[in-house]
Amino acid sequence: MSEPSMHSADQSKNAQWQQTFYRIRSNKAFELFVVGVIIFSALMIGAKTYDISPALMKTVYVLDWFITIVFLIEIIIRFLGEENKRHFFKSGWNIFDTLIVTISLIPIDNSDMALVGRLVRIFRVLRMVSIIPELRMLLNSLIKALPQLGYVLLLMFIIFYIYAAIGSTFFRTVNQDLWGDIALSLLTLFRVMTFEDWTDVMYETMEVYPFSWAFYLTFIFFTAFAFLNMIIGIVVNVLEEEHQRVRAQEAEAAGEPTLIELKQQLDEIKALLQQQRQ
Amino acid sequence: MSEPSMHSADQSKNAQWQQTFYRIRSNKAFELFVVGVIIFSALMIGAKTYDISPALMKTVYVLDWFITIVFLIEIIIRFLGEENKRHFFKSGWNIFDTLIVTISLIPIDNSDMALVGRLVRIFRVLRMVSIIPELRMLLNSLIKALPQLGYVLLLMFIIFYIYAAIGSTFFRTVNQDLWGDIALSLLTLFRVMTFEDWTDVMYETMEVYPFSWAFYLTFIFFTAFAFLNMIIGIVVNVLEEEHQRVRAQEAEAAGEPTLIELKQQLDEIKALLQQQRQ
Amino acid sequence: MSEPSMHSADQSKNAQWQQTFYRIRSNKAFELFVVGVIIFSALMIGAKTYDISPALMKTVYVLDWFITIVFLIEIIIRFLGEENKRHFFKSGWNIFDTLIVTISLIPIDNSDMALVGRLVRIFRVLRMVSIIPELRMLLNSLIKALPQLGYVLLLMFIIFYIYAAIGSTFFRTVNQDLWGDIALSLLTLFRVMTFEDWTDVMYETMEVYPFSWAFYLTFIFFTAFAFLNMIIGIVVNVLEEEHQRVRAQEAEAAGEPTLIELKQQLDEIKALLQQQRQ
Amino acid sequence: MSEPSMHSADQSKNAQWQQTFYRIRSNKAFELFVVGVIIFSALMIGAKTYDISPALMKTVYVLDWFITIVFLIEIIIRFLGEENKRHFFKSGWNIFDTLIVTISLIPIDNSDMALVGRLVRIFRVLRMVSIIPELRMLLNSLIKALPQLGYVLLLMFIIFYIYAAIGSTFFRTVNQDLWGDIALSLLTLFRVMTFEDWTDVMYETMEVYPFSWAFYLTFIFFTAFAFLNMIIGIVVNVLEEEHQRVRAQEAEAAGEPTLIELKQQLDEIKALLQQQRQ
Repeated sequence: MSEPSMHSADQSKNAQWQQTFYRIRSNKAFELFVVGVIIFSALMIGAKTYDISPALMKTVYVLDWFITIVFLIEIIIRFLGEENKRHFFKSGWNIFDTLIVTISLIPIDNSDMALVGRLVRIFRVLRMVSIIPELRMLLNSLIKALPQLGYVLLLMFIIFYIYAAIGSTFFRTVNQDLWGDIALSLLTLFRVMTFEDWTDVMYETMEVYPFSWAFYLTFIFFTAFAFLNMIIGIVVNVLEEEHQRVRAQEAEAAGEPTLIELKQQLDEIKALLQQQRQ
Repeated sequence: MSEPSMHSADQSKNAQWQQTFYRIRSNKAFELFVVGVIIFSALMIGAKTYDISPALMKTVYVLDWFITIVFLIEIIIRFLGEENKRHFFKSGWNIFDTLIVTISLIPIDNSDMALVGRLVRIFRVLRMVSIIPELRMLLNSLIKALPQLGYVLLLMFIIFYIYAAIGSTFFRTVNQDLWGDIALSLLTLFRVMTFEDWTDVMYETMEVYPFSWAFYLTFIFFTAFAFLNMIIGIVVNVLEEEHQRVRAQEAEAAGEPTLIELKQQLDEIKALLQQQRQ
Repeated sequence: MSEPSMHSADQSKNAQWQQTFYRIRSNKAFELFVVGVIIFSALMIGAKTYDISPALMKTVYVLDWFITIVFLIEIIIRFLGEENKRHFFKSGWNIFDTLIVTISLIPIDNSDMALVGRLVRIFRVLRMVSIIPELRMLLNSLIKALPQLGYVLLLMFIIFYIYAAIGSTFFRTVNQDLWGDIALSLLTLFRVMTFEDWTDVMYETMEVYPFSWAFYLTFIFFTAFAFLNMIIGIVVNVLEEEHQRVRAQEAEAAGEPTLIELKQQLDEIKALLQQQRQ
Repeated sequence: MSEPSMHSADQSKNAQWQQTFYRIRSNKAFELFVVGVIIFSALMIGAKTYDISPALMKTVYVLDWFITIVFLIEIIIRFLGEENKRHFFKSGWNIFDTLIVTISLIPIDNSDMALVGRLVRIFRVLRMVSIIPELRMLLNSLIKALPQLGYVLLLMFIIFYIYAAIGSTFFRTVNQDLWGDIALSLLTLFRVMTFEDWTDVMYETMEVYPFSWAFYLTFIFFTAFAFLNMIIGIVVNVLEEEHQRVRAQEAEAAGEPTLIELKQQLDEIKALLQQQRQ
């Protein structure tokens, strides 16, 4: 894993340093300190949205550099504390952290990069998720559930697309802003799905096409129904897995035999009886 | 199945052709090509909703014919690849595909049929569902769940109808546009159920009938409650079936004996013991 | 059951008649005819909400009397077909039907009773529920679920009442129409719960009380949370009962032994073995 | 528990009094009377929100004192009826009741305290929850479910905060009232999450940033998804616990043996057979 050409003294010194950094990194106080700095960084971002005096602005600017440096040191400690350096970049969260910290180093005075610099500072709040394991697990479970929704989302998109195509074919003459092209129609249909002033949209088209209420009602029915199915789909899977896991754990904890074990027991008894008989 | 009067040489040649077409039809690359053409056809429909130059319009027109011809060839291959021609039209999706493609052949220059031609081109996007098996299954499961909802939807319609009748009896003098007749009242009530500016409707009638808030509150309560029951109804059924299916599969996979098998085992043991006793 | 002083000839004749009426009442065609008349009566109610010519109005008036008479005859047949006359009025649906039909007999020309007459004609649509057993079961199950919600609804009402009292204490000077007294405040809060233009209400009070957003956010949180709990409560109960019922049925159908039966079997085997030993 | 320096006569007299008060406190009629007074107090609060004549106001004022005194006596009876005085203040509900009643004693004429006095009178309605055990259990179960939501709420807040920071960075120039600072942005995003006129907010920013629809759509997707997960999380836990509890109870009630008991039975049979064999 370490390069074979290295001197063994160097190697052991390296290992010692790695051990030290690993201890720092695993230290609870260190973690709490980093969480504290992230919260402070979030407050900083919030403060910058208010109109503050130039003097305070300067303080914020200095504190911003302080936060960046703390994050840089932290990421270096994490990296050095890793036994196998290659594994470090296998974790998506480590890559995310490194990227965020690296881009933060670019000075935001440069007007071209100012926007990126500000966005990166905002995304530093997301480091909270990469630090706190419970949040990381929660987000991972959300991301894991996404592929399950894949085909449902595709089906919903097809429904949306067909309705949007019909909508912009017929209603573009009624309201250019809502049904002007297929992109606008898709946005308008999303609005209808959230029930946001959808009757205003409907009453407008009903003046020209009196039967266009059927367009809206069937659309609401289809998307609500598909959405419902999506929810049920997730519920079924999550419930089922959770259920199985908990029951298996409890059965094991209680020393409860499985039906397979009972069957084996019965087989043995039968064998004993048949031996007796002979 | 094939006509007995046919020459056997013809027959075998036919069978050979059918085999060839079946191989094309089952080919993964062919399927992907068709999916690609459908996506291209969908993009075409989207493009037509933008204001495009006459030159581009001509290109789109030509491409549209190309898509129609590809679909026609594809449906012919599918039909010829089918061993038993009569089975082809037993599948609802095959009938749907054939209809869509046939109607696409009608030229859209004819102003009377232009509308139908444009609609059919939009519905070609739905061919995506008929091609991708996962989407077909998803839609089938949605359609299968519909009859389960039958009586709930009937009950909801009765509630809607009674409230609409009361609404148009009392409130038609308040607002002719919202409560003018029973059809308008039904639409207004659907709007109230989606909570879309329902207070505007209520405040208006409350000026004439101060106690009409009871009408809206009870209506919201009844429909929300009925809708809730509908959701629970589906959830219960879907969960239950899924649950049973998964558990049975797992038990079988693990070689887990059923309680019935255990009982049989016990019966045999008892018989052995009783034999010994005699 | 019948009066003992009656002549036995009369009695047997009565029983014969009752048998005849019972046969009519149980006849499928008779039921379909009544359902048809109810649907026709519903269409009548719908037609009356449109502006129709006086000539047509007269026809509707005549048809209305025809419907009333059919219903009267039907209810008499049902009553006479009942073996034990006292049981007839034990069913809530029979009482409902009788009331609706009796009140329909009052002429609607009388201006004082006109309103009642029209309402009763509308409620005749509900007879659909009393006729079709599946709808009756559905409505009964909805009504049965209500008491389960009792305490949740009481808790929600207490939350509503406290927020309404606070609201009308502080905000009545801001908007007399929305927060003038506790009844108006309750209605405004219900509107907030349905998210209907709730920000308009909030922005208005925030101009006077800048921190009033906390009032709305906590209210939305509490009611959404309580509502969620209510839903889960019902789901848990319904799921559980349905689940148990289905599983028990299936186990019985499959001839699957219960664990109790297996235990008995084992006890017998043990007894046999112990007998052998002696 | 009682002070050892006390005379035993005093002690027994005290115990006698405590017994008496305990009996009063446990009396059903006493509880119903207190519930009645709370309902009356709630009606009083409601009445005060209407414009009432000064004469009636005086009556209300007197009745208010009557209610306060009843509550004071009730709380004293409760306290004296408690065997161990120290346990009394271990219940959060007892502390809440005592606080509410004590603060009610402060005269509301004092303009500084008038607000507190009025608020306390409103919160007396919450005493309903502290009196009725079913409501107390319901509220406790709601409070117990909160920590389960902890991390989900934290994750949602992080999502809100990031979107609010981005929103106020870009959109503050578009609308100062909606995106002026991070607090306003958070409120605006909460509004978007409830779908309350969110398109108005979006259309406004889309005029300056045509691609800002992506901001709103991703936000709605993330929060809806997180919220969904939150609901499912609670449902899974509640369902699972309820399910287990009910099943265990039923199995016990039916005298159904556990698999562990069946295993023991089998072990005993095997031992018997092996003894025979020797």
